[in-house]
Amino acid sequence: MDLTTMAPSEVRGLIRKGEITGPTAGMCAGYAQANLAVLPKELAYDFLLFCQRNPKSCPLLEVSDAGSRELHAIAQGADLATDIPKYRVYKNGVMVEERTDASRLWRDDFVSFLIGCSFSFEAELLEAGITVRHIEENRNVPMFRTNIDCVPAGIFSGKMVVSMRPLPHDEVVRAALITGGMPRVHGAPVHIGSPEAIGIKDINHPDFGDSVTIRDGEVPVFWPCGVTPQSVIMNVKPKIAITHSPGHMFLTDVKNVQLKY
Amino acid sequence: MDLTTMAPSEVRGLIRKGEITGPTAGMCAGYAQANLAVLPKELAYDFLLFCQRNPKSCPLLEVSDAGSRELHAIAQGADLATDIPKYRVYKNGVMVEERTDASRLWRDDFVSFLIGCSFSFEAELLEAGITVRHIEENRNVPMFRTNIDCVPAGIFSGKMVVSMRPLPHDEVVRAALITGGMPRVHGAPVHIGSPEAIGIKDINHPDFGDSVTIRDGEVPVFWPCGVTPQSVIMNVKPKIAITHSPGHMFLTDVKNVQLKY
Repeated sequence: MDLTTMAPSEVRGLIRKGEITGPTAGMCAGYAQANLAVLPKELAYDFLLFCQRNPKSCPLLEVSDAGSRELHAIAQGADLATDIPKYRVYKNGVMVEERTDASRLWRDDFVSFLIGCSFSFEAELLEAGITVRHIEENRNVPMFRTNIDCVPAGIFSGKMVVSMRPLPHDEVVRAALITGGMPRVHGAPVHIGSPEAIGIKDINHPDFGDSVTIRDGEVPVFWPCGVTPQSVIMNVKPKIAITHSPGHMFLTDVKNVQLKY
Repeated sequence: MDLTTMAPSEVRGLIRKGEITGPTAGMCAGYAQANLAVLPKELAYDFLLFCQRNPKSCPLLEVSDAGSRELHAIAQGADLATDIPKYRVYKNGVMVEERTDASRLWRDDFVSFLIGCSFSFEAELLEAGITVRHIEENRNVPMFRTNIDCVPAGIFSGKMVVSMRPLPHDEVVRAALITGGMPRVHGAPVHIGSPEAIGIKDINHPDFGDSVTIRDGEVPVFWPCGVTPQSVIMNVKPKIAITHSPGHMFLTDVKNVQLKY
């Protein structure tokens, strides 16, 4: 069974049966994976508005109907409560458990937000012959809190979280153009070169994820990161929120290349 | 007083004082103009979701805070209740009046949606040497109801309305690429060539706007149109809704060129 070449619907089926519970990196090559954030309807308007105002950190791929576990645009026949390998359940802003099936917790007022993921633009960078260091070193991407304010919306506000990929000088512009062509998965870098300019004190100690090697002559390049919405949600300590567990993403039926147009 | 070269904030000031009450076409050359739709907060979530699901016909430039007459991203110091030359007031889906100042009607629960307008991409087409027929003939752009379903969201659903511009064969692709680079103002055409394929029976009798000349060898090219959200709002007959009057747009501080990135 080669998960890299299987169709997303097949792999979602295996996840639903509990046969896959690990990270999804590398599965269904060429297809986009998505971040999940589930909120009660009473918080959904403010959060939807937050995403509208902060499309670089929160690029929405799809928003479910309230109470529905189905999607229409980015996946057919999926069940949002079972088709992610590992969920995180937050109560009052504190993670209370991780579980592989969220159906028992699902409520009629839940709205699911599917947010674009940098896996998609990394696939494009690799395709273009640009090395992605954390993939090369088999680590999680380094992520940092910045001093960049998101545009507030209702109860939601906070700082942008960014991911960092070191690149040789002569590949920076090409990487900016390639990712800039994919705004639905975070798009172009938000900053190039000076960690301190965006409030990052120590480039070797990320706030989330792992540290990676920055070689001589390489520039740190920073992209808006899908951890931003999670971080912003936790700031308001909602009574309940469900997200995917880091790295355990939702597999969509949409090819990365479709996110360019 | 040359309104084509004045700053948008100055012209908004004149509109606020009641010194301008006519159409805004041609004012503040180079700056984007926006459609306005104002709805009570209780309808705002469904409409915001509708825009998220139908970004081609409803590209949001900004959504106000509930009750606020101000904007933050696309205009500074503007007053949404006074800075549009002519408003339309709808009650239960029926237009009950046009007025040049909406402040007396404004409510604490009003949410304003500013939606990108094809004026921006027409400026780019003209800049690129592509003739825009209705401008050449000094008419309103022809608009048609289609058989293309919008993606429903809550109480909002309906067919896409499109605008049509005839182009010589050899300019169609260039026009598609130019407008495709401006997704925040409707983006690329939704259809090229066959009116009947999208449910248009008579290309010479538009549902809105004026008819324009289609010359021999020219192809009708169709773009998603900002009349779609208005038409969809009226379908649900909200107790109250306010929009701009056709052609009497909101002048933003954003240059058209900024809408490309």
